[in-house]
Amino acid sequence: MTATTSPPVVGIVMGSRSDWDTMQHAAQKLDELGVAHEVRVVSAHRTPDVLFEYAATARGRGLKAIIAGAGGAAHLPGMLASKTALPVLGVPVQSKALNGLDSLLSIVQMPAGVPVATFAIGNAGAANAALFAAAQLAAAGDAKVAAALDAFRRRQTEDVAVNDDPRL
Amino acid sequence: MTATTSPPVVGIVMGSRSDWDTMQHAAQKLDELGVAHEVRVVSAHRTPDVLFEYAATARGRGLKAIIAGAGGAAHLPGMLASKTALPVLGVPVQSKALNGLDSLLSIVQMPAGVPVATFAIGNAGAANAALFAAAQLAAAGDAKVAAALDAFRRRQTEDVAVNDDPRL
Amino acid sequence: MTATTSPPVVGIVMGSRSDWDTMQHAAQKLDELGVAHEVRVVSAHRTPDVLFEYAATARGRGLKAIIAGAGGAAHLPGMLASKTALPVLGVPVQSKALNGLDSLLSIVQMPAGVPVATFAIGNAGAANAALFAAAQLAAAGDAKVAAALDAFRRRQTEDVAVNDDPRL
Amino acid sequence: MTATTSPPVVGIVMGSRSDWDTMQHAAQKLDELGVAHEVRVVSAHRTPDVLFEYAATARGRGLKAIIAGAGGAAHLPGMLASKTALPVLGVPVQSKALNGLDSLLSIVQMPAGVPVATFAIGNAGAANAALFAAAQLAAAGDAKVAAALDAFRRRQTEDVAVNDDPRL
Amino acid sequence: MTATTSPPVVGIVMGSRSDWDTMQHAAQKLDELGVAHEVRVVSAHRTPDVLFEYAATARGRGLKAIIAGAGGAAHLPGMLASKTALPVLGVPVQSKALNGLDSLLSIVQMPAGVPVATFAIGNAGAANAALFAAAQLAAAGDAKVAAALDAFRRRQTEDVAVNDDPRL
Amino acid sequence: MTATTSPPVVGIVMGSRSDWDTMQHAAQKLDELGVAHEVRVVSAHRTPDVLFEYAATARGRGLKAIIAGAGGAAHLPGMLASKTALPVLGVPVQSKALNGLDSLLSIVQMPAGVPVATFAIGNAGAANAALFAAAQLAAAGDAKVAAALDAFRRRQTEDVAVNDDPRL
Amino acid sequence: MTATTSPPVVGIVMGSRSDWDTMQHAAQKLDELGVAHEVRVVSAHRTPDVLFEYAATARGRGLKAIIAGAGGAAHLPGMLASKTALPVLGVPVQSKALNGLDSLLSIVQMPAGVPVATFAIGNAGAANAALFAAAQLAAAGDAKVAAALDAFRRRQTEDVAVNDDPRL
Amino acid sequence: MTATTSPPVVGIVMGSRSDWDTMQHAAQKLDELGVAHEVRVVSAHRTPDVLFEYAATARGRGLKAIIAGAGGAAHLPGMLASKTALPVLGVPVQSKALNGLDSLLSIVQMPAGVPVATFAIGNAGAANAALFAAAQLAAAGDAKVAAALDAFRRRQTEDVAVNDDPRL
Repeated sequence: MTATTSPPVVGIVMGSRSDWDTMQHAAQKLDELGVAHEVRVVSAHRTPDVLFEYAATARGRGLKAIIAGAGGAAHLPGMLASKTALPVLGVPVQSKALNGLDSLLSIVQMPAGVPVATFAIGNAGAANAALFAAAQLAAAGDAKVAAALDAFRRRQTEDVAVNDDPRL
Repeated sequence: MTATTSPPVVGIVMGSRSDWDTMQHAAQKLDELGVAHEVRVVSAHRTPDVLFEYAATARGRGLKAIIAGAGGAAHLPGMLASKTALPVLGVPVQSKALNGLDSLLSIVQMPAGVPVATFAIGNAGAANAALFAAAQLAAAGDAKVAAALDAFRRRQTEDVAVNDDPRL
Repeated sequence: MTATTSPPVVGIVMGSRSDWDTMQHAAQKLDELGVAHEVRVVSAHRTPDVLFEYAATARGRGLKAIIAGAGGAAHLPGMLASKTALPVLGVPVQSKALNGLDSLLSIVQMPAGVPVATFAIGNAGAANAALFAAAQLAAAGDAKVAAALDAFRRRQTEDVAVNDDPRL
Repeated sequence: MTATTSPPVVGIVMGSRSDWDTMQHAAQKLDELGVAHEVRVVSAHRTPDVLFEYAATARGRGLKAIIAGAGGAAHLPGMLASKTALPVLGVPVQSKALNGLDSLLSIVQMPAGVPVATFAIGNAGAANAALFAAAQLAAAGDAKVAAALDAFRRRQTEDVAVNDDPRL
Repeated sequence: MTATTSPPVVGIVMGSRSDWDTMQHAAQKLDELGVAHEVRVVSAHRTPDVLFEYAATARGRGLKAIIAGAGGAAHLPGMLASKTALPVLGVPVQSKALNGLDSLLSIVQMPAGVPVATFAIGNAGAANAALFAAAQLAAAGDAKVAAALDAFRRRQTEDVAVNDDPRL
Repeated sequence: MTATTSPPVVGIVMGSRSDWDTMQHAAQKLDELGVAHEVRVVSAHRTPDVLFEYAATARGRGLKAIIAGAGGAAHLPGMLASKTALPVLGVPVQSKALNGLDSLLSIVQMPAGVPVATFAIGNAGAANAALFAAAQLAAAGDAKVAAALDAFRRRQTEDVAVNDDPRL
Repeated sequence: MTATTSPPVVGIVMGSRSDWDTMQHAAQKLDELGVAHEVRVVSAHRTPDVLFEYAATARGRGLKAIIAGAGGAAHLPGMLASKTALPVLGVPVQSKALNGLDSLLSIVQMPAGVPVATFAIGNAGAANAALFAAAQLAAAGDAKVAAALDAFRRRQTEDVAVNDDPRL
Repeated sequence: MTATTSPPVVGIVMGSRSDWDTMQHAAQKLDELGVAHEVRVVSAHRTPDVLFEYAATARGRGLKAIIAGAGGAAHLPGMLASKTALPVLGVPVQSKALNGLDSLLSIVQMPAGVPVATFAIGNAGAANAALFAAAQLAAAGDAKVAAALDAFRRRQTEDVAVNDDPRL
């Protein structure tokens, strides 16, 4: 679960420490695929200046994508996207009362001009944001990630195919 | 519909020019009640730096409250609230696909620590945010606004009471 | 959790004793900020006359704002607002079947003319209503509350900033 | 559409004049069935005292049921029910942004102890509240209404049965 | 929880034995108010003929109202209403996946012509249907029920008023 | 749009004449595929006895499937299914206030034991119910329908494939 | 829970092993009714080629219907339907965050041309899909299944009728 | 609106010709930014084989990303993602009955393992998918696109900033 030692190319940020339960699935997947990343708590509402600085310096520090998870009135991904031209990947964290429907709509319904790529509510979304970031790196020519990603996809296909009787 | 000439005590901001159709109902109500105000388009996503500056300087410029309207992934009210200790009043603008349910949830579901006072979706919410701002000024000792507000409330009660037969 | 001894400037009311689990978060926050307050169960449906009297006398008794929590067909905040010109802050309590979506819509969708400032469903909303009431007092010139509020906000910013690694 | 001249046994009230478009379907149905009724605009939020007086005096004035229509944060039916032991029949008026889902939840989700009998959103609900009020009168022994109701139901059954080919 | 020995004037029916958890709250309330009632499982989908016979004979057997609880695609209340002119009171039972939103819409959204009086999802709705049935009987001239109902309402008002401090 | 002259093997029924706008898409598709059918208005709520008789005699009259469309508290498909062992295909008609979400849930959320095969809200659902009925007939050995269905599917695939540039 | 030894006429497939908790209710019901079936995990997203081959060969292998369960963005039923002319029966598996509302809409809202017969969310839907598949076989002339189905329906009617007092 | 003449690096596909109204906003934005692209109608349900071939050959043909728009049970983006390792960007097209909520959930709620980056419902989502694809190309080192994107973002910021009075 620790980040690799090469300089991070993906940033994982979240609005609150409690989001780590969800967002660790992004970190684990990046680890599996050998993608160097950093992990930070950055709150749109409690540390807006840190958010702005994080976003404004991200490209310069070598990041190629930012994965941002937040719940409720989840402003973190959208505000990062307003301050950086890097691809921002949003993960709606499941909220207590509305089960993440609020998080999802707050992240995905961005106005034209400032996109946030949004993934499923909760753990699946966190894992998929990591896989998507890897796919971007692969499409951009990173052969090592491309190979890791292809291996991952082959493996998950085989996992189903080898034993497809749910009673065993 | 023009702002009064005394220095504004309420700021009305909105995420896009198209929100004016809704937010003019806030401006009209403040005009009716004699509350000096200013009107600005400030986009959380397209002009984040202007938003930060607007919020950071609002208290110093004499504002007592900010009314912020936005639609969809409506981050404007919450981000203003993250940068000012002034009361921020949020108005969910009715969105095209989801009728403002996305706007409402994005504004009202703020995490503990950074409140946004939220009003109804659309015109009624804009008018009520203005009335609420006036109520705050009245509660803070502004006798002129208190009188105007009391007069408004009496009038609206009488409007119903004088003729309560819907067939006439 | 006890109210301070100066005369209350904020009233916390709720529709049922079971709402206290939620509304105590408002009381705690006001205690933290040194805002004198009172706490009452007042049911719109079971004690409508008490509700009317509470609202009608609130301003005279020195209250500057009322925080009202209710669940389901949550009429308490709106009916208070119909009987007082004081700012009314509504907290949607999470309901059993519909998770507070009913509470939220019943509180926030007020018609033009009678505003209720609405906050998030549940504990976060209760805490934020308290913070918002404090922000109003601060905006109205209460320097002690303003200082307490600024200190609170600084502290919550630092809490994130000092340790922003969710794995530690 | 005019009320009959015998003293009214059903009261039709609504929160706003604009609700008449919907609520006239209740009045028409009562007319058809020969049930004397009165029609009033009574706003929970703008004329709360009138509401209280209306409810408190309804039984004494000979009413047997109250049909109340309202939209949005529709508090009228529930507040009437809090002030009278008469059966209160609630009609959710279709609202602009949320299509009456807010009206429905605000009316139907009453807490245990104070019931409001709720009907469908819009015109169908208004007509059905009238039919239900008539059914109550019939169940209470009003033979004329019982006969009118039976005739109505027979007629509507025949209307379908006589020509059940939708292409003719 | 046993029915009284006078002939029942209210029928409580439910679509499945598992609905008894909810519907017992209707039976208890009727017991409290001294309203004689019967309790039956009648399934719209599994015993449609029993449903039809139950509805068709209800008036003749002396019932004045039917309280029907059902969950999911809750057809029981509406189909009873299609076969009897008696007032039918519907209780949406909380369903597993959709928390009773399906039950509520299936019961309340009846077409014009065949009303079902609908109450809140779950236990509160069951209790309120019983209270409403009692209110009908009272409005129809049953002085004993009227007195019991008034006593119940007074008691529940006093329960709040006597101790309105939620911390005690 | 006229039914063929061989004895009908599919019945198309709907709760109201106004549902024909939607349900004609089922009739047209069956015509296209050469499947003999009949068309009837049968209301669960206004003509329950006709409904029961229709369902009880359907198998004996040679029907192999029933397509039933209804809106709102759409009980027609479920009640047909309770009275016949034939496959019942339900089409949720788009309702005015809730856009067919009520119709969909009322039809699809049937309890275990009495299935209704449900299709999309509105015209697409009506057409697909017809296609599905044809697929059943084909699976049951009707070679003519199987051929017609295969031809239809080939044609719709070709329609896309031949010109897949949306700008032409 | 084991399939019978005659060649399967119904295929039960599911998107993930975890769907078996739900889909076993389909298998059990087919066992009860003596309908030979096979059970497979086939993932639209992880094993799309297997899905295509499964669908393309299903008719040739003697299947008369496919029951497909999936959760979330549940593409399995619709993609099977796009590759076979056999009737496809979709079962929305209850998802974690959105309780199966996502599964339901992803399955039922198919465009005109490619139908999926959809059943209730969760276990009831799985059981009903099995009953529906049996009803199809019965309608197609399988007398043994028809008799088993009639017996099942009689039994479930009697189960309610024999003891319809929920307190016993 | 015509594609540029260099070999396309982005594919825009949609499930139906009627989706072009929405998806043209993606094409226009790519044109503005000088990103070569191709446009195709590919239906998951009507032309599944074409879909598979399109996805399987996309990487080999030089595409770096696929933007896929679909409505209702919108399977196109997810099925493309199941057959290619390229980043797939999904655009929920606004549907007739459910306003695109079905499209959104069908696209975004993908299971862990196969990500689809999802954008807002309708035109804004289409434009943002294009901007996001451009951001990926920029992050991958395409300096020309990076410059065009930076210019676009500067322009949209200035458009707000230059005239921020909505009344002019």
